[in-house]
Amino acid sequence: MARYELHPDRFFDPDPVVRKHAREIYECTRSLPIVSPHGHVDPKIFAGNNPFPNPAELFITPDHYLFRMLYSQGISLEALGIPRIDGGETGSDPKKIWRIFAENYYLFNGTPTGVWLDYEFNVVFGIKEKPDGGNASKIYDELQEKISSSEFLPRTLFKRFDIEALSTTDTAIDTLPHHQSIRESGWDGRIIPCFRPDTVTDIATKNWTGNIARLGELTGKPVDSYAGYIAALEKRRAFFRRMGATSTDHGVFAPFTHELTEKEVDSLFRKALRGNAAPEDARFFNAHMLMEMARMSTNDGMVMQIHPGCCRSHNMPLFEKSGPDKGHDIPVLTEYTLNMRELLNRYGNDPRLTLIVFTLDESTYSRELAPLAGHYPAMKLGPAWWFNDSIQGITRYRQSVTETAGFYNTVGFNDDTRAFVSIPARHDVARRVDANYLGGLVARHIITRDEALVIAKDLTYNLVKRAYKL
Amino acid sequence: MARYELHPDRFFDPDPVVRKHAREIYECTRSLPIVSPHGHVDPKIFAGNNPFPNPAELFITPDHYLFRMLYSQGISLEALGIPRIDGGETGSDPKKIWRIFAENYYLFNGTPTGVWLDYEFNVVFGIKEKPDGGNASKIYDELQEKISSSEFLPRTLFKRFDIEALSTTDTAIDTLPHHQSIRESGWDGRIIPCFRPDTVTDIATKNWTGNIARLGELTGKPVDSYAGYIAALEKRRAFFRRMGATSTDHGVFAPFTHELTEKEVDSLFRKALRGNAAPEDARFFNAHMLMEMARMSTNDGMVMQIHPGCCRSHNMPLFEKSGPDKGHDIPVLTEYTLNMRELLNRYGNDPRLTLIVFTLDESTYSRELAPLAGHYPAMKLGPAWWFNDSIQGITRYRQSVTETAGFYNTVGFNDDTRAFVSIPARHDVARRVDANYLGGLVARHIITRDEALVIAKDLTYNLVKRAYKL
Amino acid sequence: MARYELHPDRFFDPDPVVRKHAREIYECTRSLPIVSPHGHVDPKIFAGNNPFPNPAELFITPDHYLFRMLYSQGISLEALGIPRIDGGETGSDPKKIWRIFAENYYLFNGTPTGVWLDYEFNVVFGIKEKPDGGNASKIYDELQEKISSSEFLPRTLFKRFDIEALSTTDTAIDTLPHHQSIRESGWDGRIIPCFRPDTVTDIATKNWTGNIARLGELTGKPVDSYAGYIAALEKRRAFFRRMGATSTDHGVFAPFTHELTEKEVDSLFRKALRGNAAPEDARFFNAHMLMEMARMSTNDGMVMQIHPGCCRSHNMPLFEKSGPDKGHDIPVLTEYTLNMRELLNRYGNDPRLTLIVFTLDESTYSRELAPLAGHYPAMKLGPAWWFNDSIQGITRYRQSVTETAGFYNTVGFNDDTRAFVSIPARHDVARRVDANYLGGLVARHIITRDEALVIAKDLTYNLVKRAYKL
Repeated sequence: MARYELHPDRFFDPDPVVRKHAREIYECTRSLPIVSPHGHVDPKIFAGNNPFPNPAELFITPDHYLFRMLYSQGISLEALGIPRIDGGETGSDPKKIWRIFAENYYLFNGTPTGVWLDYEFNVVFGIKEKPDGGNASKIYDELQEKISSSEFLPRTLFKRFDIEALSTTDTAIDTLPHHQSIRESGWDGRIIPCFRPDTVTDIATKNWTGNIARLGELTGKPVDSYAGYIAALEKRRAFFRRMGATSTDHGVFAPFTHELTEKEVDSLFRKALRGNAAPEDARFFNAHMLMEMARMSTNDGMVMQIHPGCCRSHNMPLFEKSGPDKGHDIPVLTEYTLNMRELLNRYGNDPRLTLIVFTLDESTYSRELAPLAGHYPAMKLGPAWWFNDSIQGITRYRQSVTETAGFYNTVGFNDDTRAFVSIPARHDVARRVDANYLGGLVARHIITRDEALVIAKDLTYNLVKRAYKL
Repeated sequence: MARYELHPDRFFDPDPVVRKHAREIYECTRSLPIVSPHGHVDPKIFAGNNPFPNPAELFITPDHYLFRMLYSQGISLEALGIPRIDGGETGSDPKKIWRIFAENYYLFNGTPTGVWLDYEFNVVFGIKEKPDGGNASKIYDELQEKISSSEFLPRTLFKRFDIEALSTTDTAIDTLPHHQSIRESGWDGRIIPCFRPDTVTDIATKNWTGNIARLGELTGKPVDSYAGYIAALEKRRAFFRRMGATSTDHGVFAPFTHELTEKEVDSLFRKALRGNAAPEDARFFNAHMLMEMARMSTNDGMVMQIHPGCCRSHNMPLFEKSGPDKGHDIPVLTEYTLNMRELLNRYGNDPRLTLIVFTLDESTYSRELAPLAGHYPAMKLGPAWWFNDSIQGITRYRQSVTETAGFYNTVGFNDDTRAFVSIPARHDVARRVDANYLGGLVARHIITRDEALVIAKDLTYNLVKRAYKL
Repeated sequence: MARYELHPDRFFDPDPVVRKHAREIYECTRSLPIVSPHGHVDPKIFAGNNPFPNPAELFITPDHYLFRMLYSQGISLEALGIPRIDGGETGSDPKKIWRIFAENYYLFNGTPTGVWLDYEFNVVFGIKEKPDGGNASKIYDELQEKISSSEFLPRTLFKRFDIEALSTTDTAIDTLPHHQSIRESGWDGRIIPCFRPDTVTDIATKNWTGNIARLGELTGKPVDSYAGYIAALEKRRAFFRRMGATSTDHGVFAPFTHELTEKEVDSLFRKALRGNAAPEDARFFNAHMLMEMARMSTNDGMVMQIHPGCCRSHNMPLFEKSGPDKGHDIPVLTEYTLNMRELLNRYGNDPRLTLIVFTLDESTYSRELAPLAGHYPAMKLGPAWWFNDSIQGITRYRQSVTETAGFYNTVGFNDDTRAFVSIPARHDVARRVDANYLGGLVARHIITRDEALVIAKDLTYNLVKRAYKL
């Protein structure tokens, strides 16, 4: 395999005028610290600070962005060492797993996973080849050697990546032992939790009653009424805030919001506790709980995030075999204008609330989300999310959102990753794509060069800190 | 603040070949007269022809495109002098209002409002700086001086802008006194009304029965049956035609069309008169009235416009405080193919009808609207509307529509503005973006330079005159 | 009219770097054989191998892409010689028809029909002018002379176009006499049928019971139960396979999939046979039949195609006059994630199935289809279809699909045409647009030049052969 170097102008428009501007703008932001206000890195790796075990467990096993592509081409998750929850066998030889990955690396051509991996190999690990069948063993050994050295320990990388703050995502009934232990260790890396209460607010969750029982244990009082439930949630939010959290997160199928009467919601809650809730009940309970969460955020100042519009674990046979987050969460058409009206009418004019809304449905950018964020003071628009966190995806986001919502109703970048070493790669892509977008505006004389430089720094650093209160 | 001049090649692709073609094409259209067949300028300003009172009332107070952005960043409408309907106080010092606007001018970077304002200051008023906190007073005084002079009277600007025809938008129960007075004044500016009967055709309108009573007064006979109602509407249409109107306009939530039986509709009408109509009744009555309006247009030749897909006054608390058109009308997903089938089946093959359809839902451009306009002889596609009337928005419109509907099923540009001095700015943007789109086609050898020049003039001038019968 | 030559770099980005790469990539694919796995060319023309009768019947009458545009501008289908089914008269002078077409040729500026026609005239027929009113007769005569010569016989053109395989689309009750006769003639052109059972699987089809009776005749046994019906369909599939078919095709309004119980479906089938089925019954029967077709494809290896989301024959008055496929099939919003879940859960993990899914709703590319194809091993994404088979449409397809599904979950190009001589024109456009897309990725350093060359050949030739088993 030929030597492969990242091009310094990668992802920029080839037009020399745009490229010149993009380069200059990117130079202003490339070295700014990383602020990562939303993601799914396991805090355990920083608590233990142990070496990553092997290249397969570092790159492949935790990253459903990656293994779903291999699965789509007929490679079984077992062959890739993805653990099974039904007790079945999975591959355990990391070298074999790595070889499959390397032989199929060409599948990632033209995808964000491909460009992130290219960056990780090149910049993070100094490997100047793209993996393939021929160099699989060599690269594996090189990576193994590096991750065994102290230079590649998680905390060392955290500092090398210049991460100013990193938020994890944690269930409402998580006791945050790793966050606790990081704090107690005296290490100064800022790793904070985010309060994600879906497993206790969505009554359709598997084992919801078990989660409610646990919620009662953690808050010192059995939760047997709606009032008790609300009190318990408020206690957990306070605990998360004490542990450094500045935000909450809500993953819902639809962003439907609607306040039930006290009587309705209490009776619905008790019905759910008895295991009798119907799907339509869950829909209304979720709608009500978004209202409650907005109310609490307005009061306690936690930034509220909503990530709606995904049919989680679409492939039920695979889910039963391998569990959630296995690359088959599939977006659905999402409606915001009518669904969020009640919440926005009630809390959207309140300056105490920051509500950050995301989408997987790009048709809503110009139709619903930019007009909403371009009006309601409380609402901001989250960055291009998940499948749309990509070169074209971020470009389309800026193209569809900016003209209606401007730059200042957006909140910078989220890497949203489970793959720790992909963090600098993802931020680099976002910074480059934003620089290129701004460079295009300068080249077309829509904004000036000086305006672009200010905006670039805001998009990269200032807006995220302000929006997430970091 | 540094001197700021508009770049002669602004909004054109930086590629030198595209830019060369775009420039040449734009040169053919830049000086063509403005035809403005749809908008919301207040005819009163031409009737009185008084000086605009001050920069705040000229630029800020009437323009919800502008103040919604400030509101989204936490600036209250009161601070911006937007009148309240609930009797509350609002700011009244235009200098203070202007200062807030100037300090926040950077929020419009990258938005169409920003480029329109840049044009208005530069080209209309000769002000070669962008407003900011530092120059706010100076620019205010400069503007105040200019608008007090005879050169900046409304009628003088109308001629200077080279407006060949300007249509306002007027309710069916408007007596058009300002249009009347303009005609009587002997001034030759062509300002015509457009018949927009929503407040009498939508039975869910606030005070609908009052509007119907007024309709009866204006047509000389109490409206107490559906037949009487139709007769009254036909009379009003005839009055509007006598006053120069060539078009009607219909703002509906969904473009659902369906003809009720005479018996059904008469009974529904009487139910509504008694104040007993349900939301579903309103849906069907609107659907029926679109059929009726198409029938009348087929007979009387008035061009029929449909502007659907907006949740008006989304922010109810703000609506109750400040009234409609305050920057919180939010688009919704819109369906045309099935909703408009009945109307198109009945009237869409009739050469006497011109039906111009708009959308705020860009996902319908390639999916529904271009295929419909590319088939039905009566149907034409309105230009990129409202949030999509922007550099990227018009570009996406041409990119999504042209390949299926061609250029000749579109109808030129609508400025659709309430802000009179933004008219030349908006037409200039549209002409530049169309020139750039055509230049790109020439550069990619899809059409020839000669074809582009013909199409450009058609898009700018001939199609709008033909479609709107001006 | 001025001489008109196709530009060698047409459709490529004007940027010199992108253009250089695009040109080099296109040079690798331009001469590859054409594989046409899905289309609507009439096999009769190859069975008879008679000269095309005249330019109007070659270019205009069979091509609804073309005459719908003329119709949209007020030209009647009768004037264009489109046959009527209600017995009314239609124009029969091909010279007159041709003149109307030539005079209105400018309507196709900027459309794919326009660029295909330019190619057909220039490359296939060596005519170096664009048709217009002035040259209409001259071009007509030139074309007439050519199509009367042996060089332009259908089989000769098939070889000249270098078509390796061409699939037609045939109903389940077609006896395939032309395919039969082509085979018996000893000619080696590979023309194969595709099994499209809509007229027997959609119980809402006009004359469905007649079709079922015919199905019984062809399979030797009256079809009077659901079990008998399934057996008959399996027999017809086997017949099509013997005649060379490798694929099936299913045109449904919505891609809803759902398995009924044996009892439910049998009772529904009998109800339909008695003519008593309701619209909701048809919806469920279609959903069930997609499950059955997936089951059969999993067993017999026929590639399954789904083409959903079209309101066929939208213009009912025109349909009653002129029949189906007359340019007024209009797309509708289409939902895949929830609708296809049952089918994908049941068969989508099975390596024996290849399921190729299409859309007319571009908002589903990034939201639903790319995530689904980027996960399920059985599912592949069909190319940009119908209205979206265009320069911008294919570009948007690659831009929206690639980052999530990669290149290798797509299946190359389909020309999907009824207009035989448009085949090389359409493949040329697709090859150019793909080359340009890949050239853009190289220019932005997202993939390397060498990677682009490999991918280009796969997109043009290898993927289609593999996916369609050709």
